[in-house]
Amino acid sequence: MSKGVAILGSTGSIGCNAIEVILAHPDRFVVKALAAGRNVERLLDQIDRVRPELVAVSDEETAKEVRSRTGRRVEVMWGEAGMVAAATHPEADVVISAFVGAVGLIPTLRAIQQGKRVALANKETLVAAGEIMTEAAKRSGAELVPVDSEHSAIFQCLRGERRTEVDRLWLTASGGALRDWSREQMMRAGVQDVLRHPNWTMGNKITVDSATLMNKGFEVIEAHWLFGIPFDRISVVIHPESIVHSAVEFVDGSVLAQLGVPDMRLPIQYALSYPERWEGKWPRLSMDRLGSLQFRAPDPERFPCLGYAYEAGRAGGTMPAALNAANEVAVDLFLRGRIPFLAIEDILVRIMDLHEVRHHPDLETILWADAWARETAAELAAKGRVAR
Amino acid sequence: MSKGVAILGSTGSIGCNAIEVILAHPDRFVVKALAAGRNVERLLDQIDRVRPELVAVSDEETAKEVRSRTGRRVEVMWGEAGMVAAATHPEADVVISAFVGAVGLIPTLRAIQQGKRVALANKETLVAAGEIMTEAAKRSGAELVPVDSEHSAIFQCLRGERRTEVDRLWLTASGGALRDWSREQMMRAGVQDVLRHPNWTMGNKITVDSATLMNKGFEVIEAHWLFGIPFDRISVVIHPESIVHSAVEFVDGSVLAQLGVPDMRLPIQYALSYPERWEGKWPRLSMDRLGSLQFRAPDPERFPCLGYAYEAGRAGGTMPAALNAANEVAVDLFLRGRIPFLAIEDILVRIMDLHEVRHHPDLETILWADAWARETAAELAAKGRVAR
Repeated sequence: MSKGVAILGSTGSIGCNAIEVILAHPDRFVVKALAAGRNVERLLDQIDRVRPELVAVSDEETAKEVRSRTGRRVEVMWGEAGMVAAATHPEADVVISAFVGAVGLIPTLRAIQQGKRVALANKETLVAAGEIMTEAAKRSGAELVPVDSEHSAIFQCLRGERRTEVDRLWLTASGGALRDWSREQMMRAGVQDVLRHPNWTMGNKITVDSATLMNKGFEVIEAHWLFGIPFDRISVVIHPESIVHSAVEFVDGSVLAQLGVPDMRLPIQYALSYPERWEGKWPRLSMDRLGSLQFRAPDPERFPCLGYAYEAGRAGGTMPAALNAANEVAVDLFLRGRIPFLAIEDILVRIMDLHEVRHHPDLETILWADAWARETAAELAAKGRVAR
Repeated sequence: MSKGVAILGSTGSIGCNAIEVILAHPDRFVVKALAAGRNVERLLDQIDRVRPELVAVSDEETAKEVRSRTGRRVEVMWGEAGMVAAATHPEADVVISAFVGAVGLIPTLRAIQQGKRVALANKETLVAAGEIMTEAAKRSGAELVPVDSEHSAIFQCLRGERRTEVDRLWLTASGGALRDWSREQMMRAGVQDVLRHPNWTMGNKITVDSATLMNKGFEVIEAHWLFGIPFDRISVVIHPESIVHSAVEFVDGSVLAQLGVPDMRLPIQYALSYPERWEGKWPRLSMDRLGSLQFRAPDPERFPCLGYAYEAGRAGGTMPAALNAANEVAVDLFLRGRIPFLAIEDILVRIMDLHEVRHHPDLETILWADAWARETAAELAAKGRVAR
């Protein structure tokens, strides 16, 4: 029998790939709901292709436009109520949580509370609200299945293994566009330098996070919550080829690693097919044509953001939410040419200094920390408090 | 409760490592029986350390000597009856089958027939008698757990996975001592050249097999039987660093690989601890200090023995037993300086040409094929029929 799916963030990169995967298995899935922001053209195209019962968009005006162009074929909702309706669609067994930003938090939590399988691609879910989400999943029995290639790799390596026998998680990192740059060179890094990612084609924001290693830092926090492993047993290894997507070291010294082509469709499909594996309709990795794979430790001097994430993760409470929100503001300012590349770090350090952590926060407190950090980061930048 | 163990081939390299692993976990194991050949001094030392109830040696004379030096502390048996008694000791839950050569076949089969867990290090068990052994295991419910690092890697990668979702097994090979030699250079390869193995310290015979890739070919046949995967979905990849011990490619394109230091204690312990993993008391792999790992296809022109193994495996019946026996004779002649390195190949080709395969053989027929191949290989060499 086919499974019902809801896709939150359907018009983004993960959402589009998810639809491709789903359309490749028409007998296995029926899309019940799509939620998106304001990309009306792409959403209309998706509505034609997957014929959902419900779509949700960010605002009333967009909803009106979609309604006028779809007629009665689909129910159109908007705002938080719409997102939550999509996330909790009664016939959706699986919810793909792929919103970008804090807007994903409430709908994702509602899906978890209903005990659905949640395929997690929304970073904020575990970075900002890891404790709330994993507690809710424990209570409802919801399965949290990662979509990120790194966490999917670890999830696959842990399959059939005992969590108590895990010694260390090894998250691989390409090292990003500035992998081999000196601090002096980084001071002059322009937007175009930073957006030149070697292996993955991703959005601009995440490509900058890849260049600062902030992205990897957030993945460390996600891995902590998703797999219940303390921070001192999660390590990052620079692996420029992005073939080994991550690895798990066990107490006996054995290491299991997952490898694959850098294609998001693989982990997306796995999140949907698990515990099964289905034929993959994308290029294959050929072990005997890999050539050379490199592995080395990240340089904490050149990439301090990775350390900030560990600090924030260990501080716990609202600190990771504040770090994440400040990072979004800082990266946005960098992308708009308003601050130099290394000022991103400065903003983060200042925010972590200024933030008063609240422990065991509820979602409202997390959203407060998020808003506080955004506002404070913008103020710091506006006042030139981050010039080096 | 601790498990009873019998070690067949206790004084060899695998046997000695197994005893080390067992002594590191004194609360988990009790050694009930040891079987060895003629290495009396080492056996006596092992008797002192593990205090078995039964020991078996190859012949009556050796048995007398052991008896005279141990008194009534241990029962001493000899010959096939002794080996079988050790293999079927009623209090042995796990039998480590680590004899070298055809002598391991009957005791290993008896242990399998009794439904014991058999930790397989005896190559002949699956190379020469794979069909018999795996059928017997199906009937008795015996668990066959590999000890070879390559098969242990695959066994670990398959854990929790479905066999129907396996697309390909990737056996890694160091490439051996002559990895980068031309055929012209191989014509002049001396014993000392061939015994210079880059990563593993092993016996001379297996080090030669590593240099011809015959060892890897036999592992392909073993993998075929152990995991029930057809030959055209088992591949070999040259990986000089011997860090990735093997890998499994699934139908979705995802590849799981097992990595570790090249230390036999890891797979030996895993064969004993499975489905658990226990603390490993040996050096660890550090993912962030791996440096560079290389992967490339083996060269069939320079290493034709790998192809012979596939041929023999596909021919089935008694062919792999004949190939294995002929190879033992040929390698022995090479090690004694009687034939040049490349004459090993010539003997194997001649034997495969001459051998009349019997299909679905019983153990007796396999032993006949083994004896026939030994005799014929020796004759070929004596008559100089293998000069190039």
